[in-house]
Order: sequence, then structure tokens, then C-alpha cells
Amino acid sequence: MGEPLRHQLRVRYAECDFQGVVFNAHYLAYFDTSITELWRAAFGSYQAMLDGGVDIVVAEAQVRFRAAAHFDDQLTLEIGIAGLGRTSITSSHRIRRGEELIAEGQLRHVMVDWPSLNKTEIPEWLRQGLAPWTLSDS
Amino acid sequence: MGEPLRHQLRVRYAECDFQGVVFNAHYLAYFDTSITELWRAAFGSYQAMLDGGVDIVVAEAQVRFRAAAHFDDQLTLEIGIAGLGRTSITSSHRIRRGEELIAEGQLRHVMVDWPSLNKTEIPEWLRQGLAPWTLSDS
Amino acid sequence: MGEPLRHQLRVRYAECDFQGVVFNAHYLAYFDTSITELWRAAFGSYQAMLDGGVDIVVAEAQVRFRAAAHFDDQLTLEIGIAGLGRTSITSSHRIRRGEELIAEGQLRHVMVDWPSLNKTEIPEWLRQGLAPWTLSDS
Amino acid sequence: MGEPLRHQLRVRYAECDFQGVVFNAHYLAYFDTSITELWRAAFGSYQAMLDGGVDIVVAEAQVRFRAAAHFDDQLTLEIGIAGLGRTSITSSHRIRRGEELIAEGQLRHVMVDWPSLNKTEIPEWLRQGLAPWTLSDS
Repeated sequence: MGEPLRHQLRVRYAECDFQGVVFNAHYLAYFDTSITELWRAAFGSYQAMLDGGVDIVVAEAQVRFRAAAHFDDQLTLEIGIAGLGRTSITSSHRIRRGEELIAEGQLRHVMVDWPSLNKTEIPEWLRQGLAPWTLSDS
Repeated sequence: MGEPLRHQLRVRYAECDFQGVVFNAHYLAYFDTSITELWRAAFGSYQAMLDGGVDIVVAEAQVRFRAAAHFDDQLTLEIGIAGLGRTSITSSHRIRRGEELIAEGQLRHVMVDWPSLNKTEIPEWLRQGLAPWTLSDS
Repeated sequence: MGEPLRHQLRVRYAECDFQGVVFNAHYLAYFDTSITELWRAAFGSYQAMLDGGVDIVVAEAQVRFRAAAHFDDQLTLEIGIAGLGRTSITSSHRIRRGEELIAEGQLRHVMVDWPSLNKTEIPEWLRQGLAPWTLSDS
Repeated sequence: MGEPLRHQLRVRYAECDFQGVVFNAHYLAYFDTSITELWRAAFGSYQAMLDGGVDIVVAEAQVRFRAAAHFDDQLTLEIGIAGLGRTSITSSHRIRRGEELIAEGQLRHVMVDWPSLNKTEIPEWLRQGLAPWTLSDS
């Protein structure tokens, strides 16, 4: 059983809208920084995956907004792997401010050859690299 | 039975990433432009809703990415109301390039008082304003 | 003597910050949409320039913010070519809301080979394509 | 004579365009994070300035792009105060990757009352707070 990976992110002024809260689309950009950090932990960097001849393309995204995040908030982003199919990678995301849950969601990515972007099977080295952060027996 | 509202949007260079396709978070920003256009059709403008003393806050977002959109593509955005609860508004979204489906999704917003942002019931005038674009017997 | 090219752009909710006005960085993204539209008028599309084996890379940007733009404002963007060097293209930009000047600025781009991105001379076809929108004897 | 303030920022995937480099508008958003960090060092936070009854509005921006920044680059941002007028604050910015200069620029902000956003004189406490990072005898 794996553990989620955590990193910190500070909300920028430009990410907040007239309501004074982070505009919803930026949460997907935040989730994407978690992907980058997990790939760094698992493979050295996102680039290392490209060097291995594969890339990921997002197929589905879901976000539930639990509480508002404000300018200059220090947020903790959590990511874990919720499932690995033959060609798909589902990641589970949580964003907290201290103990308070701000948002949670899931992304489903599809494995593709790089740079052709044609769908391909998840290589074994990638599967093993993600294992320490895989949350369940997927 | 209502009809979805459509408007056009052209993909900007800055919205495309290194894969040459629209970065996923921008789809939520695109959906938000559909909200703005539907509010214009229903109430005159988004500001007219604020002048009426209420605002909306997003509670949940879901996107399924069906095909890649590229720089300078002319997209057609479709929005309809999929459901109105006591305090929640669910909108259904489709993005097409010609006949091809690029993305589809749903947003659930919660009605709040403005500017306090406390949850409140959907006023009758807002419910009636959205009726022509309500897709089912919700 | 050329004339500036104009196009319309509507301010999106996500582009406005807590002050209720367009966040400054977005003006550079707006200027970039003017580049896209000028290239469309001059060459058919930005892609047509890439197909011709060259691309542009921004070297310098300057913006003067004259008045605030707000959510849902309909803006008129103006672009003209202020100067063409051996390898550099200077474009002049104005953003108006009706008659009111919102922002003005200049971008200097450098011509590069595509996809290598190495500096190169402006090809004659590109120079001639931009001529109708060249504002002075540059 | 003051010293510039430095902080670190990592380039996000979504900030890079099809050329694989940071899109130009994001540099202004990066400069803005430097403002936030300088205000934190000088006053505790940007919010502390608002609590003091004033805010800043950008009046002019200039950026010179020296070298490309790429996805996942770790950048060092430098900010210093280049000049303080009666109502205007000019900040000087540099972005480096290691020793390499990526971009440099200036922002000129105008002091305004908050929340009215009417122009006002720079209060003495704000002038003194910025003194340690003021680069010249302005």
C-alpha cells in the first residue's frame, strides 16, 4: 500500500478572481503540478518519461470544490495513483490548507507514444516507478 | 424542452502546450465563457445577476476530453441547464470543432447571496430566466 | 502608409482579478491574439508562416496601462507594424473600449527558423505580406 | 543602498507553449509573484498593505526576453525598488536560471486608496518598509 506524495504551492494573485478566490480552472493546473512532482519522485523528472519514449494525455478530469482558497494561501497538494489499467493512469488529488480540505479530484490519463501521441501500453518500468504511490490494489 | 445555447471561440496560442494542444485546465475556462453567454441570453448579463443580489460558486466540475483542440481552431461551445435544485445549478457542456466532439462535461454551481457568498435558494426570476435552455424535466 | 488591423475580444471572468479588472499579464496574451489576426490577414494563418519555415520569438514587450478593463467588456484591439529590421519585427498595439484607450504597447519579435528557432533574416514574402499594415517608412 | 530580494519559482507545464518555452505573458505573472514576496518581506504580506488602506495598480510594464525558460526549470527571481515617486513605485526585475539571465524588466505601479482605487500619495510607512530593497538614491 502506497502513500500519497505531498508538495506545497502558494496561491498567486493572478489566480484569484473577482470573488477573491482561486478561479476553478486553476485547480486543474494545480493538479498538473502534482503530476510533475510525482513523476520527479518516481522517474527523476517528467522529461525522463519523454526520454523513455512515452507521454501522457489527459482523458478525464473531475474536481469537487470543498472550500475557497484565497490569494497567498499556502496549500498542500496530495497525489496518489488510484488505478493503473493497460493504457490508463488514474490519479487521485487532494488540496488542503492546513487540515482543511479545499478541493479533491481525479485525473485519468492515457499512455501514448512520444512524440507520436498514439495510445500505447504502460511500460513495465513506468508501472514499477509509480508503485510506491499507488493507493490500492489496482 | 429547451435547446442548448451555442457560441464560438477561437483557441489562442497561449492556451496550447508543448504537445501543441489546448492544456486541459483551459477547458474549464472555456466552459465559464459559456456560463457568461448563457447568463447574457437569460438575464442580459452576468452583472444583471449580481445586481439581483445573487452569484454562483462552482462546487463540482467534470470534463471528458474526446479529441485534441489545436491553436487557432474555431470551436463551438454548447451549454444547457441539466438540472436545477433548490440551491444548485447543473450545466451541461459540449465543445465541438465542426461536427467533431472535442470535450464534454458538467459544472455544478451553488447559488449564493452577493456579495456575502452565503448559500441561498435560487430566486424564481433566475429559475424562469434559465427555463428556455433547460434540457430536461429537472 | 498602412492601416492598423482591428479585431474584437471580450474580457473573460477568469482574466479579472480581485480588483475586478483585467490582470496585467493578460494584456500580453491579448496582444498575442492581435499577432494571430494580423498573420491571418497577411499570410492566411500563423500556421502558414510555420509552413514557410520561419517562426517568431518575442524579444521585448512594453505595455502602458491607461484605464482599467472589466469583466465582459467588449474591447477593440489594434495592431500595426511599427518597424521591420533585418531580423526583427516591431508591432504597435492599442486596446480600446469604444473610444477610450485602455492600454497601448509594443512587441519586438525576432525572426527564427522553424523548428530550429535559430535567428534568421526576414524573408521577402513575409516583409511584403506585412506591408499593408506597416504604419511608417520603416 | 539596498539589495534585491530573491525567491525561487519552478516553471509549470501549462506555462509553456508549443515552442516548448514559457509564453511571454507569464513573465509578468512571475514578476507579480516577486511583488508579493517583496511585500511579505517589507510589510508581512500584501494583505497587510490592504489593511493599511492602500493598494497598487500597475501603470507600465517592460520586459526584455534574454533566453528561453523551459518546463520544470528552477528559476531565481530578483526584485528591487528602482524608484519611488510621490505616487509611483518602480520595481526592477531579473529572472535567472543559475547564472544565466532569462529575462529582465520594470514595473511601474501607482499607489491608490483601497478599496476605492483612487490615486494617493505613498504613505511614509510604506516608503520606509521598502527602503531595504531600494537599489538607488531615488
